[in-house]
This record gives sequence, C-alpha cells and structure tokens, in this order.
Amino acid sequence: MQSSSQKFRTIEWNDGVVILLDQTKLPAKENYLQISDVDGLVRAIKRLSVRGAPAIGVAGAYGVALAARQFPPAKKPKEFAAAIEQIRTARPTAVNLEKRVTETMAAINRSSDSPADAALRAAHAIREEELQSSTEMGERGAYAVLDLCGGGPITAMTICNTGGLATVERGTALAVIQTLHELGHLAEAIPLETRPLLQGGRLTTWELQRMGANYRLIVDSAGPFLLSRGAADVVLIGADRIAANGDTANKIGSYSLALGAREAGVPFIVVAPESTVDFETATGAEIKIEDRGPLEVTSIQGHEIATAGSTAINPAFDVTPARLITAIVTEARVVRLDRGETLDPVDSLRREEIE
Amino acid sequence: MQSSSQKFRTIEWNDGVVILLDQTKLPAKENYLQISDVDGLVRAIKRLSVRGAPAIGVAGAYGVALAARQFPPAKKPKEFAAAIEQIRTARPTAVNLEKRVTETMAAINRSSDSPADAALRAAHAIREEELQSSTEMGERGAYAVLDLCGGGPITAMTICNTGGLATVERGTALAVIQTLHELGHLAEAIPLETRPLLQGGRLTTWELQRMGANYRLIVDSAGPFLLSRGAADVVLIGADRIAANGDTANKIGSYSLALGAREAGVPFIVVAPESTVDFETATGAEIKIEDRGPLEVTSIQGHEIATAGSTAINPAFDVTPARLITAIVTEARVVRLDRGETLDPVDSLRREEIE
Repeated sequence: MQSSSQKFRTIEWNDGVVILLDQTKLPAKENYLQISDVDGLVRAIKRLSVRGAPAIGVAGAYGVALAARQFPPAKKPKEFAAAIEQIRTARPTAVNLEKRVTETMAAINRSSDSPADAALRAAHAIREEELQSSTEMGERGAYAVLDLCGGGPITAMTICNTGGLATVERGTALAVIQTLHELGHLAEAIPLETRPLLQGGRLTTWELQRMGANYRLIVDSAGPFLLSRGAADVVLIGADRIAANGDTANKIGSYSLALGAREAGVPFIVVAPESTVDFETATGAEIKIEDRGPLEVTSIQGHEIATAGSTAINPAFDVTPARLITAIVTEARVVRLDRGETLDPVDSLRREEIE
Repeated sequence: MQSSSQKFRTIEWNDGVVILLDQTKLPAKENYLQISDVDGLVRAIKRLSVRGAPAIGVAGAYGVALAARQFPPAKKPKEFAAAIEQIRTARPTAVNLEKRVTETMAAINRSSDSPADAALRAAHAIREEELQSSTEMGERGAYAVLDLCGGGPITAMTICNTGGLATVERGTALAVIQTLHELGHLAEAIPLETRPLLQGGRLTTWELQRMGANYRLIVDSAGPFLLSRGAADVVLIGADRIAANGDTANKIGSYSLALGAREAGVPFIVVAPESTVDFETATGAEIKIEDRGPLEVTSIQGHEIATAGSTAINPAFDVTPARLITAIVTEARVVRLDRGETLDPVDSLRREEIE
C-alpha cells in the first residue's frame, strides 16, 4: 500500500517537456512518457496513454505550446497550422480537446508575448482550472453525500475511472470519494471493475491504493445486488454528457447501478464539470449510443475468451434517466433532481457568469 | 459455425468407460476424457471438467457403476464402500451428487442382478430422466415465451451457462432457447459473458454456435440498458435454488437483469427442474450468499487485472425476489407468479406424484 502523500502526475510540463503518466501500462507499471514534440504527443493521445476528457484537453493545450516552440508561427506558419490541426483531431470525439486547443490559440492571438510563452501560460491556466474544478466538485460532492446520508462513515460504490487519471488530479466522482477519505468519513470504496476495458479494476484500484483508502473491487453485475443487501450508502458516477433534462450518459453499467440504487433507497449522484451539461441535447433519447465493436467483449486485454467466430454488441455507455438520479454535483452547484430542481437555461446563464 | 446436427456429449458411458467433455478446455479445445476408474472420475468432478448440478449427479451415478466393476461389493466390500464415499463427497455443495449416488446405491440393493449391472442400469435411467426433463423444460418454456410475447421471432437474453454442458443435453434456460431455435422462432440469443468465471462467454457461446443459433455476446452490465432500448423480448435464467415463495437464487447478475426487465416491461422467466424448488427455505432472505474469495475478481483466467494487493467482494450468486419474476417453468408446470400463482405445498405433493 502506497502512502497517501505520494502523488502521481497525470500530466505536467517541465522545461519544454510534457510528462505523461502512461495509463496503458497501469497498474503493472508506473511509466512516465517524456514528450518534446507534437508527433509524440499526438501518438500518446491516440494510443490512450492519456485518457479522460479533461486530461486530454490539458494535453492538447500543452501540445499547442510544444507546437509553438517546434514551429515558431512567425517563421513556419504552415508547419505550425498543420501541427495544431493534428492535435485538434487526435481524438475526434473528445470535445474538450477541440475546446482547449481553441482556447490556447485564442490566448496566443490575444497576447503580445511570444506565441510559445503565451501558449504555455494558457496551458498552465487550463491545467490549474481543471485542478480547481476537481477540488470544488470533491468538496461540494462530499458535503452533499454527508447531507444525504445523515453523516459518515460512508461506503461509496462507483464505476469506471473518474479520478486524477481522467483529469489532472482528484477527478470527478472519485474526487468526492477522496475528499470523504481526507475528511475521515470514508468507510470503504466499492469500485466496479467496468468491463469491457476494466478502468475500474485497473485504474481506480490504483488510485484508491495511492490515496490510502479502504476499498474492495467487485464485478459489475454484483453492484445492484450488493446495494439490495445494504453494502453501500451512496453511488457516485461521472458523466460523459448530461442532457438539459438531467438524463446522463456515462460508462455502460451506470444505468444498472441506478436501478439498483433506487430499489435499495440509496442516493445516486452524478459528479461532472458544468461543461458536461449539454443544453443542445434536450433528453437522453437524443444521445446516440456508440458501439465500439466486438473485440473488446470477445477478448480481455488481448486474451480471447469467447468461442472463435463469436460477435458481440458493445455499447460504450448507457443513459440513466433523470428520474433515477438523486443529485447532479458540479464545481458550481448541487442540483437536487429528487426535489424537482432542474438544469434550466437560467442556470446556464449563471454558469457563464461563473466561468 | 458448426452444423446443428453435430451434437456434443457432456457425459456418456461406453463399454466400461465414462466419456466426459472436458469443460475446463472449452471453448479453445473439445477434449473428451476417457475415465475407467473411480479416482479418475473423482478428479474430473473436483477440477470442474464436468460442472452443473444435474451433470454432476449423472457423473456420480456412473461413478457408482465404475466402483461396482472395480471393487465388486461381494468380494471387496470395504474398498467399494470407500469408493462410494469418495464419489459422494467429491463436491460437497452439489446436492444432486449426493442424491444420485444414493439412488444408484438403492437400485443395487433392490436388484437381484449383479451390482455392476444394476448400477449401470440405474445410471442410464438417471441420465435419461435428466435428458427427458430438459426436453420438457425446453418445450414448456418455449410455448410460455411465445404466449407471453404474442408469438415469435424472439430475441432472448440469458446469463451463465444453462445448456447441455450443465445437464446432459439441452439444459434449462438454454433448452428453451434451443427449442425456440428448432421451432424457427428464435431471432437471436443475447448471452451475458457472466463474470467472474465467464461461463456465458466461454460455454454458452460454444453451445449456441453448435446449435447454429444467431447470437451476440454482451458484457454483464450492458444487459439492463439494452433491455431498456428494446433489444430483447424475454429474459431466461436458470436457478440454483428456488425458495417456497418463488424468490430465486441464481448466478450473480440475475437480479440486475430482473430489475432491467421489469423497467422495460419484458417477461423474466426462471427455468429449472422441480428438484430446485426448496420448500424448506421460506424466502430468499434465508439463503446464505457464498463469497468465493477475491482471486476470481482480481484476475481473469489467471491473468491479473487489478492493482497488486487489491481485495474483492465476490458473491457467487444473488437472489431475485419473486415479485420481479414473471413465471417459473419446470419439467412439470408453468407457475405464473405475475398472476399470483404460487409454488404452494399442494403443488409439492403433486410433484412427488409426478416423480
């Protein structure tokens, strides 16, 4: 067991080098990639050495800083533009990547400093913003949990990896668990292994061990039943997208947990940054479910498990209807859906003021 | 894809030799064990080369026949008694093993033929009885499904392995799917992989492929969500034990599927022999949940997936309350729990007459 004081670095900048913790090697090895050019960064994003929408966004911002050093825009404008395009499209579905690259480019255009300096300052600010946001989600979430459960100690069930590995530090749902732990109110975390890609089994156990928290892993299908037997006080999940009505798209298995939580009378809480709320999407019915192909199901980490020739249905995420969600916690607010509170456009305006 | 006419033999007798399909090697290899002594049979049962309560019972009956040939009771009464005890206790939790060994011994004691002949005739009869029972469950179940769904084609979701591999041929829930397929009413089967031991991914896909049925595998946590999107018409599961009130203990993950089925308005059907109904157990609350230890969760087929030092909660099965079950199908009857029908003691008496 590692001590809680040993922090890992999901993504950092050190004297012209982006340092990335290679998540494809976890939990077996803690390898750090040292990346000093755009090609290397794009490869790292594509092969999922860095994953999780907020973390990819930060990596993209540092990528712009690398590009500005490698191809000074005043001297090599064409090469610079091509490099930026390469970064922006490294993961086509990660909205944060596009958004953070655009923000960093705007900072270059606004600044009278050198592009390299302006980009680096913007990237640092974005990293700091994500970090701050995680801290705030963790605190708001922890107090919301203590409020809903009538105090600690809390046993919290969670799915996938929503920790520092997916952001910069601390994360979303796992930030809440970490804050509960730091406050001395965490009895135990119960992470689901999260087939097919096992982010819970591989990454969340690694983070929980690093923070010195008590935890026991379970297979995904045991979650709802253990809730029915009183094994957890709360379920905490992250979100890929939250529709305007509160319907939440998240890792496959979240919906099962929501059904189990309602049946057991256990609060079910979504933790995500405000940027995850998508007012363009009215309800979950509009969210297209991505199928990631059969291989992730018929094999596990390259080891074939199913009968040769088998195919599979592989929805990457599911949609939990708002009626099954107790509260949505962001860096700015706690929305109690169970009390009829809504994510309405007024809140949207307020959110922009906060930002 | 194998043709549906190629049958496999879970367990057979051929001229003094018990032939067992080695399930530990599936789906990669179709190896048959040739067993001609008691030690070999006991080893095969212990290492799970043969699994599933009905199949283990049949193996035990043939074991008595092997013992009577190897240690003729008139000449070697002590060795014979020791061999019988060895078979009876090969898997302490398998009630069928104990029951079938006792039945075969009773047949020896009743008969004027040689013990070897009497035991073999009894073992053949037990095998035939299991086979007949599977055929009847398959037919009753198939017509119950067509009735509940208003006709075919049917897409059926199922968990674990409940096919011929767990019985002698055909099985319980998978027998229903096979019968629907043979009647031309199966659109597709959707087996859950069934972590931790992957009986769905390894064994059910193998059986579905052998019968020539359409199927697509899914991870366990995708079941309830796919039901919510209308992906299946019915859920069919087996049972380890059915309490007097209808509460059903079955493979972990069954309860999640039951919650998903109710939410989606999809019939949820338990298929099991009458011998699975346990009138000594009033409700599911009395059923003790076996925890099989952390290793099955922290690793997959010997391949470690979790952070070193992780522990786990590993309930082997769960309990689905009767209120979530549409019907229980046995070889003798269809009990519509959704219409208020019950497994009451009157039925128990009737069952004994049928037997």
